[in-house]
Amino acid sequence: MEYLDNIGKRAKKAAAELALIGKSEKNNALNTAAKALITNKDFILTENDKDIALAKEKGVKESLIDRLRLTNDRIKAMADGLSDIAALDDPVGEVISMKERPNGLIIGQKRVPLGVIGIIYESRPNVTADAFGLCFKTSNAVILRGGSDAINSNKAICSVLCDALKSVNVTPDAVILIEDTSRETATELMRLNKYVDVLIPRGGAGLISTVVNNSTIPVIETGTGNCHIFVDETADLQMAADIIENAKTQRTGVCNALESLVVHEKATHMLPAIAKRLYAKGVEIRGCEKTCKVLPDALPATDEDWGTEYLDLILSCKVVSDIDEAIEHINCYNTGHSEAIITNSYENSQRFLNEIDAAAVYVNASTRFTDGFEFGFGAEIGISTQKLHARGPMGLKALTTTKNIIYGNGQIRK
Amino acid sequence: MEYLDNIGKRAKKAAAELALIGKSEKNNALNTAAKALITNKDFILTENDKDIALAKEKGVKESLIDRLRLTNDRIKAMADGLSDIAALDDPVGEVISMKERPNGLIIGQKRVPLGVIGIIYESRPNVTADAFGLCFKTSNAVILRGGSDAINSNKAICSVLCDALKSVNVTPDAVILIEDTSRETATELMRLNKYVDVLIPRGGAGLISTVVNNSTIPVIETGTGNCHIFVDETADLQMAADIIENAKTQRTGVCNALESLVVHEKATHMLPAIAKRLYAKGVEIRGCEKTCKVLPDALPATDEDWGTEYLDLILSCKVVSDIDEAIEHINCYNTGHSEAIITNSYENSQRFLNEIDAAAVYVNASTRFTDGFEFGFGAEIGISTQKLHARGPMGLKALTTTKNIIYGNGQIRK
Repeated sequence: MEYLDNIGKRAKKAAAELALIGKSEKNNALNTAAKALITNKDFILTENDKDIALAKEKGVKESLIDRLRLTNDRIKAMADGLSDIAALDDPVGEVISMKERPNGLIIGQKRVPLGVIGIIYESRPNVTADAFGLCFKTSNAVILRGGSDAINSNKAICSVLCDALKSVNVTPDAVILIEDTSRETATELMRLNKYVDVLIPRGGAGLISTVVNNSTIPVIETGTGNCHIFVDETADLQMAADIIENAKTQRTGVCNALESLVVHEKATHMLPAIAKRLYAKGVEIRGCEKTCKVLPDALPATDEDWGTEYLDLILSCKVVSDIDEAIEHINCYNTGHSEAIITNSYENSQRFLNEIDAAAVYVNASTRFTDGFEFGFGAEIGISTQKLHARGPMGLKALTTTKNIIYGNGQIRK
Repeated sequence: MEYLDNIGKRAKKAAAELALIGKSEKNNALNTAAKALITNKDFILTENDKDIALAKEKGVKESLIDRLRLTNDRIKAMADGLSDIAALDDPVGEVISMKERPNGLIIGQKRVPLGVIGIIYESRPNVTADAFGLCFKTSNAVILRGGSDAINSNKAICSVLCDALKSVNVTPDAVILIEDTSRETATELMRLNKYVDVLIPRGGAGLISTVVNNSTIPVIETGTGNCHIFVDETADLQMAADIIENAKTQRTGVCNALESLVVHEKATHMLPAIAKRLYAKGVEIRGCEKTCKVLPDALPATDEDWGTEYLDLILSCKVVSDIDEAIEHINCYNTGHSEAIITNSYENSQRFLNEIDAAAVYVNASTRFTDGFEFGFGAEIGISTQKLHARGPMGLKALTTTKNIIYGNGQIRK
């Protein structure tokens, strides 16, 4: 498709230019873009109103319209995001290691940009500015394909960013929005491996599996989190109740929220107190047979419940006979995101850390901490649930690769 | 497909067991497997004879039969390979970093196995033992799908390895050979992302592009190398001739061999002396118009030549007006493998290192050094030409991922 081929070429050319831009020039551009978002907020809000009006016309439900809506505060948050990124350490250019080989060759690994990053996302228009900021800081060009619902908002934000880049003599092709929001174009983008080095889908499970199944570009899978907490025999009841309430109810629609409780059969006496805290927050509990015996108000869980990421005020609960069964159950149903144990047993804490296969494994803490800011990365482009390249919250380093640089003085291979 | 689903399940179960095996236990198993290859060499040679006979019957050409053939020496080399891997440092379990956050959470990144690795390869049966060794050392289970030509050899090697593992009480499912060598099964394997964490194709450009286009499993692309050497204006003629002869002729069928020469127009006076060395080794030169003026024996190159990885005694040659044109030409046609400049200009050496987009970029050395052994990794599973996860020669670390381990004492998110 000529339209996308042309976008790919422009992005690749921009990436080559961005790879040579100095750190202070990049930070200046980010700060300029941040100011431009504020200066042009009325324009952005007017364009956003068009998206909101169209969504209302189509009868989109209020919770989705809220995700789409921009306000003065939300635009300020986008601008602050860009300034915050400008203030972060820039990982590009760092030489991670350098060694002399016996033949005198000096071989080093230098951190360099990935090149061109493609991002496919759903309705939140703030992703447009956030993704640009993180990609630009790491000298990558980014091709954005947002949802059709937010197209006017995305176009407005993107044009403000591009104008800001032009004003400081940086190529505006550093961020290119695909304005054609058809499915065909999205599918075509997934096969643009001639130009795009990495594709990052941000959105629900459906979007992610479409990208994984169709992309010929290397993908970083993000997102789905069927997160468990295991209450061990030796758990402290107060700590367990605090952590479980926090992980389940502090925010329900996020990937690091608790979805399933696993309880040692010698800890079931703690369940009523834990359930009381959850019921007070409006949580529905779906339990196995043993759970239902202890919690008369729990609904019976079906097999499907164990594999479900509710993203809602619902929690499944399974009683297990020991830590072996807990680990087996969690490794069977977890999506490789965040898993926690509440215990006072040294041995079980170590076994859980070693044997659970997930991006983040916790002892005695809420799963809600799996997040680039909480991990100290300053920002994040998403949470990887795959094992290749990056795992868990992805900060700036996840948007770089390395290049082997080799200094010789005439070496030939024997 | 039930056949593959069953293999996937066995491999995943084996991976969970391997993740918990101690380092000395792994090394003992590798050394036992090395000895078993020697002890059972007659069996392996007999089975290999069957493949050779079938290949001859089918009229396979001698160079391919040679790749298929095992000898006492080649079996010894496989066994030595396993003992060498046993002697390497084991990266699994290393905690790369660990920090305390302001809220008291202690967050570390620990190096862990990838899990299940799939390897699709062509006719060389030694890959069976090599791939097993590297994957096993890093506590990964491996599913092997070799070529149909080598099926009897691969089955023999695999059964020897499995018996050796059993003899030291390690699960033989650490290495599973797919005995059904149909295309359908290979395609099915590429979509087994429920069980397989990473897929590594090893073979020609056709195999690699089939895997990239069909796999839903994250792929590490390896192999193709359209490698260039740029002879700058200030190059030392003797050094240039030595390096070019070495890179082009030391071994021609390998991915880090030189395929295309790029010459500064003020360095064309060096071309006759360089060509003389190459002609003496039987190299055919295909040049641009300016090349042909200086080298009357050169054949005219077509546009197709610039993008061709010959893997043969053929070299394309292009004269450029300056380093800008050289960088542009190389970045247009290179496959992201290995690129070199011969120069005495500090500025141009730095520009080449910074601006050329490839896994390995050399100043004044042969491209032939792009190799896990030459880089000091002790072994390699392949050379990545992609940017995600690993770039350039992949040693043991490339077969690992990290897991975030978090020690808390009741932290909840505010």
